[in-house]
Amino acid sequence: MQHNITQLHEQIKAGDFRAIARGVTIVENSLPGYERLLLSLHETRHARVIGITGPPGAGKSTLVSALLHHWLKENKKIAVLAVDPSSPFNYGALLGDRIRMSEYYTNPNIFIRSLATRGALGGLSSKIIEIADVVREAPFDIILVETVGVGQSEVEIAGLADCTVVTLVPEAGDEVQTLKAGVMEIADIFVVNKADRADAEGLYRNLRILAHEKANGQSETPVLKTVATSGAGIEELASEIVKFLHTQKTQPAKRLHLMTEKCWQLITAQRMKSIDHSSLKAELATAIKKNDFNLYAFTKDFLSHFVK
Amino acid sequence: MQHNITQLHEQIKAGDFRAIARGVTIVENSLPGYERLLLSLHETRHARVIGITGPPGAGKSTLVSALLHHWLKENKKIAVLAVDPSSPFNYGALLGDRIRMSEYYTNPNIFIRSLATRGALGGLSSKIIEIADVVREAPFDIILVETVGVGQSEVEIAGLADCTVVTLVPEAGDEVQTLKAGVMEIADIFVVNKADRADAEGLYRNLRILAHEKANGQSETPVLKTVATSGAGIEELASEIVKFLHTQKTQPAKRLHLMTEKCWQLITAQRMKSIDHSSLKAELATAIKKNDFNLYAFTKDFLSHFVK
Repeated sequence: MQHNITQLHEQIKAGDFRAIARGVTIVENSLPGYERLLLSLHETRHARVIGITGPPGAGKSTLVSALLHHWLKENKKIAVLAVDPSSPFNYGALLGDRIRMSEYYTNPNIFIRSLATRGALGGLSSKIIEIADVVREAPFDIILVETVGVGQSEVEIAGLADCTVVTLVPEAGDEVQTLKAGVMEIADIFVVNKADRADAEGLYRNLRILAHEKANGQSETPVLKTVATSGAGIEELASEIVKFLHTQKTQPAKRLHLMTEKCWQLITAQRMKSIDHSSLKAELATAIKKNDFNLYAFTKDFLSHFVK
Repeated sequence: MQHNITQLHEQIKAGDFRAIARGVTIVENSLPGYERLLLSLHETRHARVIGITGPPGAGKSTLVSALLHHWLKENKKIAVLAVDPSSPFNYGALLGDRIRMSEYYTNPNIFIRSLATRGALGGLSSKIIEIADVVREAPFDIILVETVGVGQSEVEIAGLADCTVVTLVPEAGDEVQTLKAGVMEIADIFVVNKADRADAEGLYRNLRILAHEKANGQSETPVLKTVATSGAGIEELASEIVKFLHTQKTQPAKRLHLMTEKCWQLITAQRMKSIDHSSLKAELATAIKKNDFNLYAFTKDFLSHFVK
């Protein structure tokens, strides 16, 4: 096994798609060799990770498609990791935009992988971090990670990506202010997609105002308009991403911040690994039946049994 | 302090709004007496927690307002916990729908509290669980918890609420299928809000189909149409919620599932408490400078220093 992982690692570094896919599967399912593979990764990797996030309906997949189309013309090698909300029925894997990406599945410069998120308990983010790090070991120029998310999961993606593009659409309506509060912190670039819609100008203007307020004299978060379906604005977006990645290299503080977030999520997953969900459930089932059950007393007691 | 917490607990049980607010503050900020207050709570509480969740722009706050309006006519006592995405600038607290709720702020039957989420690191969900449990100790009939969320945070809210209402709007567009994958698991009731819009019927029909497929012969997740701004459909929604809460009492398996989720989140917060974010950052800063830095080796090493 040890030998196989070393070999696999070499194949991944050489850009062998089957090896990359196998590496991802090993990490995704914590198969034998999992830890060894992760421990062998290098931090001096070439590929930059670009997170594309935003609420459902923002056209993220179409934006990813358009960016793929653009960068392929520049002969870039690109990996796409699409993160689906989990479902026991796997609706996410069957339906939706992924079909539209089918034209790219046979392109030798593009590696595409859909990832299930397995709900909150499986540790969504730590797995994606690990998977992205495996893919990063291959000679890609760019890794696009698409996630549906507002709030929590967006913050997580920010710890993973070198550049986070937050995609919004006009008509987000009354609660657009609330949305912005959550994403303001993590957006490196804002995209107003479907910018040909009536309300686009209002959303664009509001984002500019917020970006200005946030900047506080520093450089403002760029706000761009795109119509991903027609490709309008995609060239500008691509060059803004490249520009951001370039300036970011000179910001060690930001890199350290990202790395700390990443590490925090890995540690959370690690710390929870020793706790067995089913035995927790079984103990709870017994405890609930008792009079005077208190969840906090139960939790305290349950945790006291963990030496590790 | 011990005496004060006992007294505070009695005042909360008596429904003293100032005491409830103080209790929430103590828990929110982990002030002295925090643990003692939690350990004194009872599980045999009266109030039921109703989670209102869904993507930005779905009109959740307006829906909460409409439900408040409805239940006030029935002389119910209601608490509202509104969870904002965090922001160092507190945009969420300054702007948005909350203003529209101002008419309720002076009503003696309504307790309203906005909560900041403090980003991913603070443990969003464990704090909200604890706060809801404190509020639950007071003689409210209903506790409405409003969260913006798609994905991760929705799963979390499901662990907190006795009934989770997922609010969607027409025009969610291309990715509506993906959205549904994530929320299918946690929705007890679906609401198609802004149902007077053109695409409402299509969304409604799709949700019905998914609810039917998911039910697999069991009872289907109800799908309701509302126009929260005009109050249309609110009476039906309120009675569907009450009906759900009633049937749910006879489902110990579901209660155990919810309790396990809740407990898991409390345990996660507890397990991470001993890890100091700033010292992690400091150690990372040193480690990154070394040649051959590997995040997984670092994490392993960092964690090995934790006896606790």
